[in-house]
Amino acid sequence: MNREGLLIVVSGPSGAGKGTICKELLNKNKEIKISVSATTRNPREGEVDGVNYFFISKEKFENMIEQEEFLEYARVYDNFYGTPKKAVLDTLSEGRDVLLEIDIQGAMQVKEKYPKGVFIFILPPSLKELKDRIVKRGTETEEDISKRFGCAISEIEKIENYDYFIINKDVERAVYELQSIISSEKNKVARYKENIIKQFKEEL
Amino acid sequence: MNREGLLIVVSGPSGAGKGTICKELLNKNKEIKISVSATTRNPREGEVDGVNYFFISKEKFENMIEQEEFLEYARVYDNFYGTPKKAVLDTLSEGRDVLLEIDIQGAMQVKEKYPKGVFIFILPPSLKELKDRIVKRGTETEEDISKRFGCAISEIEKIENYDYFIINKDVERAVYELQSIISSEKNKVARYKENIIKQFKEEL
Repeated sequence: MNREGLLIVVSGPSGAGKGTICKELLNKNKEIKISVSATTRNPREGEVDGVNYFFISKEKFENMIEQEEFLEYARVYDNFYGTPKKAVLDTLSEGRDVLLEIDIQGAMQVKEKYPKGVFIFILPPSLKELKDRIVKRGTETEEDISKRFGCAISEIEKIENYDYFIINKDVERAVYELQSIISSEKNKVARYKENIIKQFKEEL
Repeated sequence: MNREGLLIVVSGPSGAGKGTICKELLNKNKEIKISVSATTRNPREGEVDGVNYFFISKEKFENMIEQEEFLEYARVYDNFYGTPKKAVLDTLSEGRDVLLEIDIQGAMQVKEKYPKGVFIFILPPSLKELKDRIVKRGTETEEDISKRFGCAISEIEKIENYDYFIINKDVERAVYELQSIISSEKNKVARYKENIIKQFKEEL
């Protein structure tokens, strides 16, 4: 049976650990493709065009926005970041799954453009744990930490727009749950009903 | 977080192999409880009351039907078979999952009474394979086989009432998919949203 690939959207508040979970998932599942973002910022040392990002000009980016060529995009200070639609859709139609690790605002844009995606919200085990993790990073001022923490609380209320949640207490466990979600989505009647009935009818 | 157990309803046409899959699932997951049916037929040698079946009188069974104490029931020739509701619901409220292996008509009755259940349809790899399996059992006349096979085709069309399908080509694989479905259902936002938000709000 031909099955279209899944767009797996992993999202959640900063500090919940979505990056670690996604990295582990990709390590264990070489067949899942990660979506490469486009950006207008300059490449940093060691970054490769088409691998870390597609580095494009601001003019090109704005043109792509106009042509609705992004699944989602955002402006962060002076730079744009976005997920080019075509590359994702092409991979999905080849039957390969695509992973998108993205913040909550981005995920909500993707949901609007591609509701068939699987939307997964990564949660910290507790708010205390989330704060500790943000502090531990040590990259931010106290004010930034408070701000980020305040955001996290209001972000958690966005969970109702998601299909699944994963409480990231233990990375191994979280990755297992993520793999189970991906597997189970491939068994959904609502997703593949027509293919199944067609397959059996062809035999008659 | 307190999570209510899942009612896992495994169903599908005769010969698709649901019995083998359920047996393997239970072997690997001792914490899943199997639902014990009630019946009015006499115990066969070695059958234990409360283990294989609850053996009850016809009068009692009819009384339970009247009191709506069954999740589903059916009359097969002169005997009644049914799934007592109370035992199932009690186990679920303890947070334990309950497995129900059942035919399609029964599953549809359960869905009406307990729509929160997870409804899984086991499919054979092909209609040819299904026929071969029914023939191989060798317990039925040619007429029975034809009849059973005819039923299977119309039963497959009932798949749209189910949440998931599993193509039983390889038992190990099918059990993995079933386990993934069970795992992923425990990560569903729609199922546990209130519990999650409550948990985080309690911390504030």
